[in-house]
Amino acid sequence: MLEQVNLKKAITKEEYQSEADRLKTELTMLQQEMKQIGLPVIILFEGWGAAGKGSAISKMILNLDPRGFKVYSTIDATQEEQRKPIMHRYWSKIPAHGNISIFDRSWYQDISIAQLEKHISKEELNRRTESIKTFERQLSDDGYLIIKFFLHISKKEQKKRFDKLKEEKSTAWRVTSLDKERNKNYDKYYEVFDNMLINTNTSDAPWHPIGAEDTRGAMFNIYTILVNNIKNAIAKRRAQKQVPQVEIPTISVPQTIHLIEVPKLSEINLNKTITDEDYKKLLGKAQEKLHKLHNKLYQKKIPVIICYEGWDAAGKGGNIKRVAAALDPRGYEVNPIAAPDKTELAHHYLWRFWNQLPKAGHIAIFDRTWYGRVMVERIEGFCSNEEWHRAYTEINEFEKELYDWGAIIVKFWIHIDKEEQLKRFEDRQNTPEKRWKITDEDWRNREKWDDYEVAINDMLQYTSTDFAPWTIIESKDKKFARIKAIKTLINQIEIRLGK
Amino acid sequence: MLEQVNLKKAITKEEYQSEADRLKTELTMLQQEMKQIGLPVIILFEGWGAAGKGSAISKMILNLDPRGFKVYSTIDATQEEQRKPIMHRYWSKIPAHGNISIFDRSWYQDISIAQLEKHISKEELNRRTESIKTFERQLSDDGYLIIKFFLHISKKEQKKRFDKLKEEKSTAWRVTSLDKERNKNYDKYYEVFDNMLINTNTSDAPWHPIGAEDTRGAMFNIYTILVNNIKNAIAKRRAQKQVPQVEIPTISVPQTIHLIEVPKLSEINLNKTITDEDYKKLLGKAQEKLHKLHNKLYQKKIPVIICYEGWDAAGKGGNIKRVAAALDPRGYEVNPIAAPDKTELAHHYLWRFWNQLPKAGHIAIFDRTWYGRVMVERIEGFCSNEEWHRAYTEINEFEKELYDWGAIIVKFWIHIDKEEQLKRFEDRQNTPEKRWKITDEDWRNREKWDDYEVAINDMLQYTSTDFAPWTIIESKDKKFARIKAIKTLINQIEIRLGK
Repeated sequence: MLEQVNLKKAITKEEYQSEADRLKTELTMLQQEMKQIGLPVIILFEGWGAAGKGSAISKMILNLDPRGFKVYSTIDATQEEQRKPIMHRYWSKIPAHGNISIFDRSWYQDISIAQLEKHISKEELNRRTESIKTFERQLSDDGYLIIKFFLHISKKEQKKRFDKLKEEKSTAWRVTSLDKERNKNYDKYYEVFDNMLINTNTSDAPWHPIGAEDTRGAMFNIYTILVNNIKNAIAKRRAQKQVPQVEIPTISVPQTIHLIEVPKLSEINLNKTITDEDYKKLLGKAQEKLHKLHNKLYQKKIPVIICYEGWDAAGKGGNIKRVAAALDPRGYEVNPIAAPDKTELAHHYLWRFWNQLPKAGHIAIFDRTWYGRVMVERIEGFCSNEEWHRAYTEINEFEKELYDWGAIIVKFWIHIDKEEQLKRFEDRQNTPEKRWKITDEDWRNREKWDDYEVAINDMLQYTSTDFAPWTIIESKDKKFARIKAIKTLINQIEIRLGK
Repeated sequence: MLEQVNLKKAITKEEYQSEADRLKTELTMLQQEMKQIGLPVIILFEGWGAAGKGSAISKMILNLDPRGFKVYSTIDATQEEQRKPIMHRYWSKIPAHGNISIFDRSWYQDISIAQLEKHISKEELNRRTESIKTFERQLSDDGYLIIKFFLHISKKEQKKRFDKLKEEKSTAWRVTSLDKERNKNYDKYYEVFDNMLINTNTSDAPWHPIGAEDTRGAMFNIYTILVNNIKNAIAKRRAQKQVPQVEIPTISVPQTIHLIEVPKLSEINLNKTITDEDYKKLLGKAQEKLHKLHNKLYQKKIPVIICYEGWDAAGKGGNIKRVAAALDPRGYEVNPIAAPDKTELAHHYLWRFWNQLPKAGHIAIFDRTWYGRVMVERIEGFCSNEEWHRAYTEINEFEKELYDWGAIIVKFWIHIDKEEQLKRFEDRQNTPEKRWKITDEDWRNREKWDDYEVAINDMLQYTSTDFAPWTIIESKDKKFARIKAIKTLINQIEIRLGK
């Protein structure tokens, strides 16, 4: 793509002043509209060293209300960030509705510069490129506007700029030996950048290469693109609000995802039990084993993600407690998932889960999970029809990302029947120290049992994958359920450790 | 303190089982009460390596609802954390009202182990100890309950435990050469720990040394202390809610804080102006100078904190814009401060500011600040009489902490008079593209001008210190104000850089 960029395209000072002023005012006004309508915008700047990314951002943000944007400079991942999946640090920085995140360099460093300087394999490169495309598509599907600039200058111009920076005392230190090395190998970088632009120039998030040798010309282009794109996105959003979707969506899962068959809930035999004696013996043994495995996982820096979903009063809490009791508190966390708060609602629904991932070597237990999207949100209409249909793919992609990072993903559906639930609800109601565990909402949910059963069967069918399979835990006998959960967990860890 | 600890205090298995069960159930119930009443609790565990901190926490949390607590392991500060003030990483982890933060090792590492292993100076040690005491007092004053355990074992016992860990394959790697070194130098560490306990055994947050050679005895003590302390704190809180404070508090600032005299608002001459020609010339020059200084600050890793307070419509936004225009966007951030959200309200009021500090070498511009406590919160009654009186000291301490870390703190009061404000309000009302800038609240605040003037004069009088002085910026002529602000900033930076 770069060969088509007009590097020199200049604009006279007079033309610039009158036109740019108009565009800047428009940008200021558009930000207010964006806020009102809740449009989230991501603007990223990639390009050659000394191409003027910093000063372009500097100029641009002077037209923006600081309460509505944040600038992020992407440098090498910190130690802390290196212990999370590669896309974690970008997911954590997506803007809330109505806000702007501006990136000075971005996730594109991981598939450009990294190729030459971190020597990543071809396979890893492809994987990262797919991760990025998935990231941008998921955001775009959720209504995020993504504007990507690449600031282009020639080898000669870059050298000239570095030389000029070096001349001045206060800026000389900014030119490093790495910069000089990069200028010398300009052609190699050119090829890498050009391939990156071609491979990630999607309809969800197209690239805007900018000839940056003439600063005024570059700024004029940037302002024009910003104003047009934001204006269009606002118009599109308004139109969507007026004319709701009529097409009936269907659930579909990409062919690259291999689904594993899981029985329907109605087929589950809930009469499995265990004697108290066996329970005590087996629990102690299993916990001891799990404790040892936790040590090994920690040493090998393998992260584990345990997902608990299940009927109200099915025994999730007690089950989690027995798993947790075997673990070193320095190496695990229980993440209870309640209804999203205001900040969480103003982001992509997966955002809060990206922010709660364990570090490599740690275990995260989720007490309820991202599957809320295809259960409570589907049934209560907290998301649109189209959104929950799309979610199966998004969730599979999310879990695939975690798997590729190296995580072991264990998902439990803690199962009881309707009758058993009633018994337990009544017991909670009648026992003073248990009463806090039961709320009106539990009773309301119970009335929708049949709707939930349909949704859960869909969930089990479309999100049980070879890399993140569901296990149904029969929990009419809670003790049986606890042993089965720990044993399943042990088994999946041992498989990964190659035992 | 350690010599008084009974290391062996044993309890029979039978005694333990019946008593501990009762205490555990009580703890579970108390957590629910804590939640209802909004009591925040900090529990920290310090002690010898292999004294059983991890397993004590493990056992304790099994009795707690995971939705209400979080465990933090304190290890060496990450690169990221090292660029923030030392107390930052602890402030960021304080619990919300009704929640529990549990620390496996804590801020006490910085004044114990660090003495022997990081070779900090006596002076630094004293400074850190004071910081910790201030931290705990501020939290305690705000209603936080702090429970501090020190798990004590003898040199011999520690060696025995290390040897046992080494014997088992899955735990052998946990015993490092550093552990062995520490055991060998047990006596040195003993002295350091003992001094730490004595020096920080305050009434706000007393220490509970626990003899930990007998595990059951230790757990029994821990449960007892937890239950008693939480119960008392709940009772105290209920009592306070019933009988409001009658004492009339006064503003007082510790003698160690040196105040600098600032004129009263009524004494300010607002007729200072500048010609357009001078403005253009001086602005360009000043911005260029500031830009160069920003580079130097970055190189020397000096953080800068710029605080903007001022009357509505005084011109804060435009003033900030002119400062920002001179800065590299990769090295500064504007933090607009609005009314606290739900999460922020559930923490100490300084918490959100601790979380928005710049990294060393960066500049943070606060568009409104922590001074909201002694202005809007005081006037609107969002905090108690006692709370805003106490705030002057808390804020001075907070800024002192930032200064000691190495920060340059520049505080502007952007000033206009009542008449000028009316003119600007009306102008905003009558200009379509400015209308979003004026709200009903602005008009309501205007009615309370006189109350604000009293509060502002108090603020200027009691928080203008030698390490963080206030500068009043006459802003009837906005251009004059911008030049004065940038020049003040340049001046304060140059003083620090030793020019």
